[in-house]
Amino acid sequence: MSRVVKLAVIPGDGIGPEVIAEAEKVLDAVTAQSDVTFDKTHFSLGAARFLATGDTLTDEDLDAIRAHDAILLGAVGGVPGDPRLKNANIERGLLLKLRFELDHYVNLRPSKLYPGASGPLAAPGDIDFVVVREGTEGPYVGNGGSIRTGTPHEVANETSVNTAYGVERVVRHAFALAAKRRGKLTLVHKTNVLVHAGGMWQRIVNAVAAEHPEVSVDYLHVDAATIFLVTNPERFDVIVTDNLFGDILTDLAGAVTGGIGLAASGNVNPSGAYPSMFEPVHGSAPDIAGQQKADPTAAILSVALLLDHLGLTAEAARVTAAAESDIVERDATARTTSEIGSAIAERL
Amino acid sequence: MSRVVKLAVIPGDGIGPEVIAEAEKVLDAVTAQSDVTFDKTHFSLGAARFLATGDTLTDEDLDAIRAHDAILLGAVGGVPGDPRLKNANIERGLLLKLRFELDHYVNLRPSKLYPGASGPLAAPGDIDFVVVREGTEGPYVGNGGSIRTGTPHEVANETSVNTAYGVERVVRHAFALAAKRRGKLTLVHKTNVLVHAGGMWQRIVNAVAAEHPEVSVDYLHVDAATIFLVTNPERFDVIVTDNLFGDILTDLAGAVTGGIGLAASGNVNPSGAYPSMFEPVHGSAPDIAGQQKADPTAAILSVALLLDHLGLTAEAARVTAAAESDIVERDATARTTSEIGSAIAERL
Ligand SMILES: CC(C)[C@H](C(=O)O)[C@@H](O)C(=O)O
Ligand SMILES: CC(C)[C@H](C(=O)O)[C@@H](O)C(=O)O
Repeated sequence: MSRVVKLAVIPGDGIGPEVIAEAEKVLDAVTAQSDVTFDKTHFSLGAARFLATGDTLTDEDLDAIRAHDAILLGAVGGVPGDPRLKNANIERGLLLKLRFELDHYVNLRPSKLYPGASGPLAAPGDIDFVVVREGTEGPYVGNGGSIRTGTPHEVANETSVNTAYGVERVVRHAFALAAKRRGKLTLVHKTNVLVHAGGMWQRIVNAVAAEHPEVSVDYLHVDAATIFLVTNPERFDVIVTDNLFGDILTDLAGAVTGGIGLAASGNVNPSGAYPSMFEPVHGSAPDIAGQQKADPTAAILSVALLLDHLGLTAEAARVTAAAESDIVERDATARTTSEIGSAIAERL
Repeated sequence: MSRVVKLAVIPGDGIGPEVIAEAEKVLDAVTAQSDVTFDKTHFSLGAARFLATGDTLTDEDLDAIRAHDAILLGAVGGVPGDPRLKNANIERGLLLKLRFELDHYVNLRPSKLYPGASGPLAAPGDIDFVVVREGTEGPYVGNGGSIRTGTPHEVANETSVNTAYGVERVVRHAFALAAKRRGKLTLVHKTNVLVHAGGMWQRIVNAVAAEHPEVSVDYLHVDAATIFLVTNPERFDVIVTDNLFGDILTDLAGAVTGGIGLAASGNVNPSGAYPSMFEPVHGSAPDIAGQQKADPTAAILSVALLLDHLGLTAEAARVTAAAESDIVERDATARTTSEIGSAIAERL
């Protein structure tokens, strides 16, 4: 009996379509021999679509996407400084809108240093952690505004909104993950300055910790966490943190583990009420778009996260193993985006 | 004709008194041969004072400190988790209160990699930049609050407040600094998400840039900036950024340039209306306090920033040179806090 998964594919802008083509190649290869079929719908969204039609994400788009079981996204965003995009905020209007509308409260970002992937650290040690970034609250809520805009008397505010409901659910998810991994959870915040939001995060972590005696818990201020990410990244297993701190830490984590060309992520709605979305951490990199220079590994590892999320654990493990062995065995020889994708697909 | 500088000294907690003793040793040595005299008043402030008296920073303390020409601070903060400090926020009540009350709108944090100082990067290149961190606005203003605190319905908000007045003055300072250095300024923010605050920062940087054709300007999102700090820190000359992003970036910058044992900082009120305050970037490190294990170099380099701020440029240069040559020539031999201080004082 075969299972059909309805997959929304959003290749996006810049290198997005190139890396998604390889991610699909790998997805097709791994499902060819299994009894699951992916029924794919491609959505043309992003800066290019905005320039062509003036739309970023319409209600119809959103309804159509919502009717899928999962989403695979490449990258969105036009050429920085393009005057035609001046008033379009593709990030807020498309990427963040999807995360918020589809209640992707767990932004899952694994970091692992593979032998063969060379990062900037002299002695990186054995890096293998996951950042569980809150995805629907914090300074990302868009509750900002300004008065006397553009004058010498302008005041521009941004409000970080945090709820016990929102924090508790992501903290619970992080504890469950830590319990399945090495049993270590680190809360990262800035409790000494952001006393209200930080205080609530700390209280909720303490409360959930009491239910998880098998997980050891510590706390780091976000500034100190960046130090440890470069001096002792081995110490981390699961990091749970706020939307903005998670954004910052995961780019740094990607860099220390060999570059964001390898960093995969999932925007997950664990309840299953909405489709979850999987995407490389990197952006659309318009400067190298169309040149077959992008590394599709992050997009391919995002497919593995997607398969895992759908309960297709065997397929997920095969994709991960294929991508990992490609990373481990790669040398300095330059390969095109498509060559890397094919090499990984062939290993399956 | 001799000049007298009234200096407020706040050794603080943990390793603060140890590193300040060495900073004073060096200050005494460099002024011994000059015609400037430092008239020092020691203030006993910090967690220890709070535990003894219940006071963090009284109006009388503040008035007394305000009557000085400059401030030298070690580090403040008690043992993490000390239940007696549960309701004391020494950071907000003392350190941030001083920065805000004394209008320290330029938080100056130089980062330089000296030969001999080994950081975590395999190929760090030639790191030499200054972060100009805004010091009186942003998410640090303390405009947060929560409702239904401690219940499942809690909502905790934190508001980042940013004014054109506050941003313009720090941006002007950063441009003037860049013009005196290598002529390169990087704005770091998160304009794609924090559109109101970020938009204002960007507009003000653009406006001031028009008056500084000699300075080349670029922009990085804070997440991308952390990547460049580990993959290509050479690219930076002057970074201008918001209070919270500056906090995060300077800890990371300290780490990549050999550890925060070397990172000095100034909390500067360039108008001179209030005394400026100089302090190492590191904290009070209660775990190694009283053991003569702390490196006093950051405190000593903070003295150099202090001298420079007071226009004592020759003295500043001598302290910097002495500290730098100590760094360059140090080997793996462990030295006590006091041995390092004496070694630097002797080089003067
Ligand atoms: C593009 C941007 C809005 C986004 C974010 O800040 O979350 C990106 O940096 C990421 O990490 O996915
Ligand atoms: C102690 C803390 C409030 C402070 C800050 O966040 O500014 C510290 O981290 C710093 O960088 O000086």
